[in-house]
Amino acid sequence: MSTLESINVGADVKKLNIKELELLSEDIRKEILSVTEKNGGHLASNLGVVETTVALYKIFDFAKDKLIFDVGHQCYAHKILSDRKDRFSTIRTDGGISGFPLRSESCYDAFIGGHAGTSIAAGIGFCEARDKLKEDYTVICMVGDASIVNGLNLEALSVKGEKPKNFIVVLNDNGMSISKNQNGLYRYLSKTTTKRSYVVGKKTIRKVFRDSFITKLLGRFKNFVKRLIGNSNYFEQQGFKYVGVVDGNNVTKLVKALSRVQLAAKEKAILLHIKTTKGKGYSKAEEQADVYHGVGEKLVSEQGDFSICLGQSLCEMIDDDDKIVAITAGMKDGTGLNAVEKAHPKNFVDVGIAEEYAVTSAAGMAAGGLKPFVAIYSTFLQRAYDQVMHDVCIQNLPVVFCLDRSGLVGKDGCTHQGVFDLSYLLHLPNLTVLAPNTKAELKDALVYAKELSRPVAIRYPKNSGVERRLTPLSKDPWEVVADGDGEVILAVGPRMLDLALKVREKKQNLKVVSVRMLKPLCSRVLQEIKDKKIITLEENSVIGGFGSYVSSYYAEKDQAVNVISFGVKDEFVAHGNVNNQLEENGFTVENILANL
Amino acid sequence: MSTLESINVGADVKKLNIKELELLSEDIRKEILSVTEKNGGHLASNLGVVETTVALYKIFDFAKDKLIFDVGHQCYAHKILSDRKDRFSTIRTDGGISGFPLRSESCYDAFIGGHAGTSIAAGIGFCEARDKLKEDYTVICMVGDASIVNGLNLEALSVKGEKPKNFIVVLNDNGMSISKNQNGLYRYLSKTTTKRSYVVGKKTIRKVFRDSFITKLLGRFKNFVKRLIGNSNYFEQQGFKYVGVVDGNNVTKLVKALSRVQLAAKEKAILLHIKTTKGKGYSKAEEQADVYHGVGEKLVSEQGDFSICLGQSLCEMIDDDDKIVAITAGMKDGTGLNAVEKAHPKNFVDVGIAEEYAVTSAAGMAAGGLKPFVAIYSTFLQRAYDQVMHDVCIQNLPVVFCLDRSGLVGKDGCTHQGVFDLSYLLHLPNLTVLAPNTKAELKDALVYAKELSRPVAIRYPKNSGVERRLTPLSKDPWEVVADGDGEVILAVGPRMLDLALKVREKKQNLKVVSVRMLKPLCSRVLQEIKDKKIITLEENSVIGGFGSYVSSYYAEKDQAVNVISFGVKDEFVAHGNVNNQLEENGFTVENILANL
Repeated sequence: MSTLESINVGADVKKLNIKELELLSEDIRKEILSVTEKNGGHLASNLGVVETTVALYKIFDFAKDKLIFDVGHQCYAHKILSDRKDRFSTIRTDGGISGFPLRSESCYDAFIGGHAGTSIAAGIGFCEARDKLKEDYTVICMVGDASIVNGLNLEALSVKGEKPKNFIVVLNDNGMSISKNQNGLYRYLSKTTTKRSYVVGKKTIRKVFRDSFITKLLGRFKNFVKRLIGNSNYFEQQGFKYVGVVDGNNVTKLVKALSRVQLAAKEKAILLHIKTTKGKGYSKAEEQADVYHGVGEKLVSEQGDFSICLGQSLCEMIDDDDKIVAITAGMKDGTGLNAVEKAHPKNFVDVGIAEEYAVTSAAGMAAGGLKPFVAIYSTFLQRAYDQVMHDVCIQNLPVVFCLDRSGLVGKDGCTHQGVFDLSYLLHLPNLTVLAPNTKAELKDALVYAKELSRPVAIRYPKNSGVERRLTPLSKDPWEVVADGDGEVILAVGPRMLDLALKVREKKQNLKVVSVRMLKPLCSRVLQEIKDKKIITLEENSVIGGFGSYVSSYYAEKDQAVNVISFGVKDEFVAHGNVNNQLEENGFTVENILANL
Repeated sequence: MSTLESINVGADVKKLNIKELELLSEDIRKEILSVTEKNGGHLASNLGVVETTVALYKIFDFAKDKLIFDVGHQCYAHKILSDRKDRFSTIRTDGGISGFPLRSESCYDAFIGGHAGTSIAAGIGFCEARDKLKEDYTVICMVGDASIVNGLNLEALSVKGEKPKNFIVVLNDNGMSISKNQNGLYRYLSKTTTKRSYVVGKKTIRKVFRDSFITKLLGRFKNFVKRLIGNSNYFEQQGFKYVGVVDGNNVTKLVKALSRVQLAAKEKAILLHIKTTKGKGYSKAEEQADVYHGVGEKLVSEQGDFSICLGQSLCEMIDDDDKIVAITAGMKDGTGLNAVEKAHPKNFVDVGIAEEYAVTSAAGMAAGGLKPFVAIYSTFLQRAYDQVMHDVCIQNLPVVFCLDRSGLVGKDGCTHQGVFDLSYLLHLPNLTVLAPNTKAELKDALVYAKELSRPVAIRYPKNSGVERRLTPLSKDPWEVVADGDGEVILAVGPRMLDLALKVREKKQNLKVVSVRMLKPLCSRVLQEIKDKKIITLEENSVIGGFGSYVSSYYAEKDQAVNVISFGVKDEFVAHGNVNNQLEENGFTVENILANL
């Protein structure tokens, strides 16, 4: 029986000795590798924190204590150890467990993960509830070095002078972020970790760590400690005791440090700085952790063909116009902007996971005369909704947003679905919204957006549709792809266009229109078809999406038009196969035919 | 001729000597007081920065250099000095100048102000554009101590290691914020400013400030300087040279400091820490700067009656249920939560201007067993759209959002209109959206929301409508206020209900329904009226709002219903009189009658 097999609930970990904990870590690592090979997932980040998670389970009791993951790319070992060992092979599949922490899935998942920056705020909230309700548990937030610099985390770090007791932030510093970044705090961390030693804050900690190797080191690194950990250490300024740096892949050191930290936290909140190797134990992932950050099945790093097209197209456009700047928020590989970094490093900016800053600084660049293109996944641009409106749209500045992973995204699930962007964008005055179906159309949309010199959002899924003869957007924003005198389908995006054409195979008098410009609406076509039955198809919430925009176009004009909207139901869509997600939301030939 | 009368353009300030600059400051202060008395506006914050603005104009050339205001509550003196002296008396009125910086208003307004936290990101964007385009100007951001701790500013401070040259952040520390807050950085600033002296960073600055009173002080405050301004000074970590503290109400000191800072910025970005007295020169405002932060005509501090009702209702609810916590993001007076702070300080949290943190920490509290009520103006909750979705709605947590100042807001203008909340909220799964018309209905809605124990948003304008006999929400989410067999008006919010009833005076067979619950929709009523002509009235964008939700309800069901939506046009609504804003958006009896 492997050590992992001997563990039934999280509490069983407490019985293991150091040697067994190390064996357990190895078992978990193998399990993560073998399941991720089948199901895809976040590989490198999860491999990096196996020992830390095991050590946390050795010291804490997560039936009571709360473990909160920032982003959630590091929760696999936690899922295995808590109560989902037997279901771990179902991760990211239909009806299986999620790749991210979900309260609805297990009482061990204290708080959701998915978007960055939420954990410290949520953790402080938990502590406030605990203290008010006179309960007794420890709250632990696990935050990576890439997401600690997100604005929400920075607010949480800075917002209260003193942090609550029995509150521990584990800063997992793998020195990589998703891509490397040049953030000020990040540089500060790097500097700190170059000294491979524990360095510890003032009295309280010193008391707790008495007679340990830590106090022995204090003399040696006195000046260093003074400089970094004294009154003006960043984290100490924010009301924490700082403890670090601990080797987060060394079970022995972790167990010692955590048991002391657990005690010390009774007196003051702790920031425990650990250093881990991203991709630990899988050589390819260790060497190229950014490439192996998120992988598909067979552990191949996945880049959508729309993403590749974005990178290539921007490179070509920059060749002709040096004023173009491509901006990513810590996702250069996923968005395809790595190509721009390579070919035109001076026209490339990676701001780290700081979507708000990405958008407002882009607005500043545009006001200063540049032409910024901001590539952010549909789900992550939610974070900068206010900045898109306030800094870009009100000022009518020429910033182009490239929203990758729009529509249903499959295995990442409810926190990552790109099914709200039309609802949060279409109502913004001054904004043009485009939805190309093919790579040629994306390229065309980028050029169109640049020449428009106003705010533009371009939304597209990971993969493009079948290329057709290109009618430029400037000539025909709504292209009639198949004509007919029957009902009219207005299709948004490649999968919906494909579906519409399949429906037409069954009903040949249908008219199929490819809607490549969602805003402004094409009044000409809408007036031409107003006496027909109109079907809208979109991978976006039915509420506030394109169909609803078409309905309200007619409603504003007092025209009673028969519009049927097909969109994503008013529910959060769980992880699973995209085809099943489409089917569950009614996007099938049969369902559409039945409603004609 | 007063000194102010002698100034025609900003550059004229450069010719004045210190004595004249002081006289000019006095003239400007008088002008601000007299105009604000007529037009209302942000009094205390604007009075505080008069000398600083005058000194900035003495040293810099804003025909070329860029002056960016965070929030924009401090731009009046700038508007007067740049090119709007003659129009200053029109501020906040129809067709007059805006109370906030607007690029469309003047080339001296480099970037918009309104929401907090945008200036440093925008400033860095400007610098990047300038350096790429090989232009030559200085970028200056004016940030208050309340908004420097906003997540967007914190991202901007932290996101790049080294900040650009010729970039100056003036941190205007009036030690007040909008309300006092206990933020970590804020505490750090307070500590710094208790030493009333200039303290200056390392070599570069020392070189520039050679032989000055500053270097003389360096010896005396050596330890202090070391501790705060050494390697680990927060701002120095973020790639700035820190200069401060300078008395921001002393023209002589400011002019000296700024001329040196201008030079020093050629070598490295500068954070200039000034200290000012909010409300300077108007005793009432100096004493109660938070009360006099925003004032109406006659300089009376304004609190809406809905806001007062919120505070009172929550106090009563907390009497019965100690799990309720009222949360504000730096706006306790505006939202009415000051009453909760007074009566139940342990059930009150002011997080400062950190809307994202407010929402996610509330989600943490709810997950921990509390019942948080988060009161944030409609326009400011935009900043936390992602948190409302990701942390509250996906997890289906019982957080109640109280959106004050929904609908058209009048004089604050385009950055503050509350006309998008329905568009950014209605499509969120699991969220219930309420819109009370009267104080009794608000109270009822709060109790309903608490008992529902799920995510709820309650939106209401500043002022409530005329009280009627209350039908509880739980009994009748859509109340028929006037019956008839003609067209049906679905009215949202007190002004729209009032308008509907006025329309009915002219056409007595109209049926008027008060829609107090916007989501979920009331299927029963919608099915009853599906053969009638339906008119929706809402102070929200026509796109993605309530009318569009009603249209898409029928569209999803393939029911061709005649819906006419009246909402705010797809344009940003400028400052001015609310009645004119209503009229311009078609909310008149005549216009509605004409469309029946």
